[in-house]
Amino acid sequence: MGWSSNCDVEMTRTLLSESDFIAGFHAIGEERYHHKHPFHLLMHEGKLTRGQLQAWALNRYYYQSRIPIKDAAILARSEDADFRRNWRKRILDHDGDGTRPGGIEKWLCLVEATGLSREAALSGEGILPATCYAVQAYVEFVSTRPLLEAVASSLTELFAGTLIALRLDALRRHYPWLSSGLDYFTGRLTQAPEDADFALTWVVKHARTRQEQDQAHAALRAKCDILWAQLDALYFAYVNPGWPPPGAFKPQIFQSEGQSR
Amino acid sequence: MGWSSNCDVEMTRTLLSESDFIAGFHAIGEERYHHKHPFHLLMHEGKLTRGQLQAWALNRYYYQSRIPIKDAAILARSEDADFRRNWRKRILDHDGDGTRPGGIEKWLCLVEATGLSREAALSGEGILPATCYAVQAYVEFVSTRPLLEAVASSLTELFAGTLIALRLDALRRHYPWLSSGLDYFTGRLTQAPEDADFALTWVVKHARTRQEQDQAHAALRAKCDILWAQLDALYFAYVNPGWPPPGAFKPQIFQSEGQSR
Repeated sequence: MGWSSNCDVEMTRTLLSESDFIAGFHAIGEERYHHKHPFHLLMHEGKLTRGQLQAWALNRYYYQSRIPIKDAAILARSEDADFRRNWRKRILDHDGDGTRPGGIEKWLCLVEATGLSREAALSGEGILPATCYAVQAYVEFVSTRPLLEAVASSLTELFAGTLIALRLDALRRHYPWLSSGLDYFTGRLTQAPEDADFALTWVVKHARTRQEQDQAHAALRAKCDILWAQLDALYFAYVNPGWPPPGAFKPQIFQSEGQSR
Repeated sequence: MGWSSNCDVEMTRTLLSESDFIAGFHAIGEERYHHKHPFHLLMHEGKLTRGQLQAWALNRYYYQSRIPIKDAAILARSEDADFRRNWRKRILDHDGDGTRPGGIEKWLCLVEATGLSREAALSGEGILPATCYAVQAYVEFVSTRPLLEAVASSLTELFAGTLIALRLDALRRHYPWLSSGLDYFTGRLTQAPEDADFALTWVVKHARTRQEQDQAHAALRAKCDILWAQLDALYFAYVNPGWPPPGAFKPQIFQSEGQSR
């Protein structure tokens, strides 16, 4: 190995400053977060049909339904009661307290606003297998990787606030018939930044070597891939070429309904 | 619950005859096995570019590399030495004996015949995340579901012989520059039917209730979904619309090379 290779190796072992470490997360988000996915671009331009929005709400419901399970898996791996007390909030946010609805219930309202029944989402029938595989990969990731990586994978929430604000505006404007189902997003407008703040502070504190910093960055990349793959599958099945796999949900009016009610 | 519903419940509890149980597997294959996937249809019509075949070989390598791990997970769950002695053959077929190459080594030769290096496949870089999620879902399935379902999920091999014979002919005809890399398929022409015979006999013997028969059918459906989803992801990334996700393999000459060398 020559001098320059050795030099490279040394370089990669230098601990990043806190600001460079944090900037690394933002650079990953800019490149890979699903705000740039063509399915979201169509959504925000008002170009999705009701059937396509149904498919999105139905498939994304499966993701939402696994979030408290994912967070419980993370909670179960921490020996720090302070961490667990904070992380518990995420489970409450999604499952609710039995009186006020949590995020999952709010997402079911969004499913209903698209014109599908909540039973359609709860049954799991017709969800794209690719959605299930990606979501399962997320739960598997946080259950088996070091806790630092599990927590870092949640840092997509650094970017969620901006995306949700944009989406709320676009959904209200282009799909007014959806407006009764948007409580999930208004809730996340405040929850996501709170969650991201806690997780980022924790990751910055606990990534003590360059290798750990790199692993934390890689975990965020892995999570971005998981979100992106879900939209790839939706686009393939319901936009272009528009081929849902055998057994998957098929909108009743698929080809030509436009965005109107 | 009315009479007709009760009647339906009774009906579903009737044990299928052996021939009807087996016919059920074949009906599932006819509907869902990936011989009908548009990516394979293009392949067999000679309409894939070299770059698209590279992407296929690279991604499918990841699947091949997990097969012995999947089979070891199944082997580890059986308390029957006779079953284990038979199932062990599958691991040997894929890993080789150290002198004769196994299926994984043969697949690396196919990767090389497409013009990619074996290192490209071994590194795992550029493989579609959706491929990884689907393959991981398969390993997870056989590791966590009842052994009957794990074995039944292998019954896609009932249909592999016909597909491979067709593919060998098509690859030789349309992509003669690939011909040095086809040993994997000639090997599978005899291995797949042997494996399928053993697994089918075992599943027929061990599915003793209608519920178990239904679960065995569902396991084959689940496996078909896993194969299908891998081709959906390839098609989306490399055929139409042709959008590999951030970080995935991009063929050097992507758009316009045709099928020639």
